[in-house]
Amino acid sequence: MEFSRRISALKPSAIREILKAPADSETISLAAGNPSPEAFPAAEMAAVAAEIFASGAASALQYGISEGYQPLRERTLERARRVCGVGGDGDELIITSGGQQVVELAAKTLLNDGDTVICEDPSFIGALNALRSYSAKLVGVPCNGAGMDMDGLERALREHPEAKLIYTIPTFQNPAGEVMPLASRKRLLELASQHNVMVLEDDPYRDLRYGGEGVPAVKALDGEGRVIYAGSFSKIIAPGIRLGFALAPSALIAKMTAAKQVSDVHSNLFFQVLVERYMASYDIEAHVARCRSLYRARRDAMDAALKRHMPEAGWVLPEGGLFLWVNLPGGEDGVEFCRRAKEKKVMAVPGSAFLCDEGGFSSAIRLNFSLPSIEQIETGVARLGETLREM
Amino acid sequence: MEFSRRISALKPSAIREILKAPADSETISLAAGNPSPEAFPAAEMAAVAAEIFASGAASALQYGISEGYQPLRERTLERARRVCGVGGDGDELIITSGGQQVVELAAKTLLNDGDTVICEDPSFIGALNALRSYSAKLVGVPCNGAGMDMDGLERALREHPEAKLIYTIPTFQNPAGEVMPLASRKRLLELASQHNVMVLEDDPYRDLRYGGEGVPAVKALDGEGRVIYAGSFSKIIAPGIRLGFALAPSALIAKMTAAKQVSDVHSNLFFQVLVERYMASYDIEAHVARCRSLYRARRDAMDAALKRHMPEAGWVLPEGGLFLWVNLPGGEDGVEFCRRAKEKKVMAVPGSAFLCDEGGFSSAIRLNFSLPSIEQIETGVARLGETLREM
Repeated sequence: MEFSRRISALKPSAIREILKAPADSETISLAAGNPSPEAFPAAEMAAVAAEIFASGAASALQYGISEGYQPLRERTLERARRVCGVGGDGDELIITSGGQQVVELAAKTLLNDGDTVICEDPSFIGALNALRSYSAKLVGVPCNGAGMDMDGLERALREHPEAKLIYTIPTFQNPAGEVMPLASRKRLLELASQHNVMVLEDDPYRDLRYGGEGVPAVKALDGEGRVIYAGSFSKIIAPGIRLGFALAPSALIAKMTAAKQVSDVHSNLFFQVLVERYMASYDIEAHVARCRSLYRARRDAMDAALKRHMPEAGWVLPEGGLFLWVNLPGGEDGVEFCRRAKEKKVMAVPGSAFLCDEGGFSSAIRLNFSLPSIEQIETGVARLGETLREM
Repeated sequence: MEFSRRISALKPSAIREILKAPADSETISLAAGNPSPEAFPAAEMAAVAAEIFASGAASALQYGISEGYQPLRERTLERARRVCGVGGDGDELIITSGGQQVVELAAKTLLNDGDTVICEDPSFIGALNALRSYSAKLVGVPCNGAGMDMDGLERALREHPEAKLIYTIPTFQNPAGEVMPLASRKRLLELASQHNVMVLEDDPYRDLRYGGEGVPAVKALDGEGRVIYAGSFSKIIAPGIRLGFALAPSALIAKMTAAKQVSDVHSNLFFQVLVERYMASYDIEAHVARCRSLYRARRDAMDAALKRHMPEAGWVLPEGGLFLWVNLPGGEDGVEFCRRAKEKKVMAVPGSAFLCDEGGFSSAIRLNFSLPSIEQIETGVARLGETLREM
C-alpha cells in the first residue's frame, strides 16, 4: 500500500497524541488546549435540546445544505459584525466543522502542491499540519513580542515571491499569547497587497480578552477582499460540537463550500439549530463575560504561581486566550524539560512542537491555564519549578 | 485570487443544489437522497440526549480524539462484525463525519494528483466529486444489471495499469440500485490483487434490504487488506448528525486519522456518545427492521405507480436502498425530461448527473422512494407519466 505524497510526511499532532495518553489521576495537565467544562452553557444547551426534540426534531436530524443552517449563518454574521467588525458587502459566511476546517478548506481551495505559506513561528500545530497535508512549504516568521514581526514578514515575502498565503493568529496567538498591534495589522495588509498574497486570519480567542484594549481584526481592516476569517464556537460554547465559521469573499466561499460538500456534506445540523436557538434565547455576551472572569482568575493564578515557583523564567502576561508561553531561563531544551516534568506528574507542551521546522529547537514551553483549576495550577507550576531546579 | 488546480474544476453537486432551490409546496420531490424522518428514532434520541445532559455533559461537549469515542468505536465494530461480517484482525475502525468523509480521507491518503480511480458509471456524485477534488482521473465501468461489469473492470485495469483505486457501491448501488453478486465480488478482489490496486467499498445501504438474499460485503471476502470499508449511520439513525465509519487496515487508518485530525479534529462528540448509548439501550436491529418495512412499502408503491403510469419505461425492482433507476423508453434526454417534469411539479435527477464524464448523455432518471409518502409517490409518478407522454 502506497500513500499519497501529501500524507506520507504528515505526523499526528503531538498535542492530540497527549490526549490519548492513559490518564494518571495524579498528573496535572497544563498541556491541553481545551476550554473549561465550567465554561460550557450546558444547562441552557440541555433546555434548548429538549425544546428541539419536543417541537419535532425531523429537520434538525435530516440532511442540510453545505453552507450551514441559514438562521445560524445569519445570527453568526450579525454577531461577527457587531463584536468583531468583520463581514462586509462582498463577504459570505458558511458554518464549518470547527475553526480547524476553515484552515483545511482554505488550504485545499488555494494551494497547489509545494506552494509557499508564510506563518508565525511558533504557530498552531493543527493549522500547520493542515497546510502540510496539502504539501505546502511553510516559511516561518518569528513573533517579536507583538505577534508576527513585520520586518521579518517583508523579508520573507521578498525572499519568497512565490508565496500564496499568510497564515496568522493575530489575537492571543497560539502558542505565544501575543497580540499584533493595529499598526502591524495595517502593515500586514499593505504587504499582502504589494505581494498579492491572501491572508488567513485564525481568530478563535478574540472573545477571551482579560485586560488591555481590543484591537480590530485584520479582516475588519481589509479593503481588498484579501482576508479569510476563521471563527469558532469552541471557546465560547463548546468544542465537542465542532462548529465554527469561515467569512471570506463570496467567490472564495463558493469554492470552499464545494470543498466542504465533498468533505462532510455539512456540519452537525442538530447543534447548528441548537446554537442558533441558544443565541436567540439567551444572552451570549453575558455568558462570554462569565467565561472571561473564569479564565482571567486562572491566568492570574498561573502568573502568580510562576512568580513564586520559577521567577527566573521569562514570560509576558497574555491579555487573553488560553495560553502562557514561558522561556526557560538557561536556554534548557523544552522537550527534555517536558519529559522530566511528566515524571514529576505535570504536563506541558515543548515549544518545538509549534515550529515550522519540525526538527527545530526551542527552550520555551506552552502552559494552558483554562482547563486546570486554580489549585491544580498552583500545584502544577510548583512541580514545574521543581523540575527546573533539578535540571 | 487564484484557486488551486484541484478545486478549480470542482462543481457543486447537482443534487445538493436542488435541496437549496426554493421549496414550492405543490412540487413533489423524487430527487432527494434523504431517508424518511419517520425512520429517525427521535423519541429515543431525545431520551438519551436528556440522560447525557442530566448525567453531566462535560465530556460529551469537550474535545475528543480524532479516532472517535472509544465505546462507539467498539460497539460499531461489534455490529459491523455481526451484521456485515467485516472487521478482521489487521483492521481498525474510526468514526467519521458521515460516510462521505471516508471517501474524502481515502482519496487524500491514497491519491496523488492525476491518479486514476476506476468507478461504476453511473455512480454517487458526492464520491465522484470527492475523488475529483484530489485531481483524480475517473475511469467509468458500466453497470450491467448486476453492479459493475467485471469484464469491463478487467479491461479498464489493463488499459490503465496506473490505476490506484477501485471505488464501488456493490450493494444497492446509487443510483442504479443494483447488487453485485458474490461471484463478481470475488472476481473484483482477484482483479484488484492482480493489478495491485486498493478497493473502496461504500456500503451505506446494506441494512436496507427489502427482499432477496444477502450478499457478503467485498470487505468480508478480502484476505489481503486491500479493502477500505465505508459505513454510515445516516440511513439507520439520521443523516443530520453526520456520523459514519471507516474500517481498513490499521496502517491506512493511522494515515486517515492524521488526515481527519487536520480536517475537523473529530466528529461531533455529543452525538457519538448519544449513538453509543442509543445502541446500548435500545434494540437497533428492531429499529432497522421498522425502517425496512417503511421503505419496502414505498418501493412497492413506486413500482406499482410506474406500472400504472409509465409502463413503457424500463426499470428493475431494486432489492434494497433508496432509489429506483428508470430508463426512458424512447431514449429521451434525461435532463430535458427532468426540466419538463419540474414544470409539472415533480422533481427527479437526470442520470447524466451521475456519470464519470460530466458532459455525458443519459436517458435514465433516478427516483427516490424513501422520502415521499405513498400518496406523493403515486401523484409524483403520475406527473412523470404525463411528462413522458408529452415529450
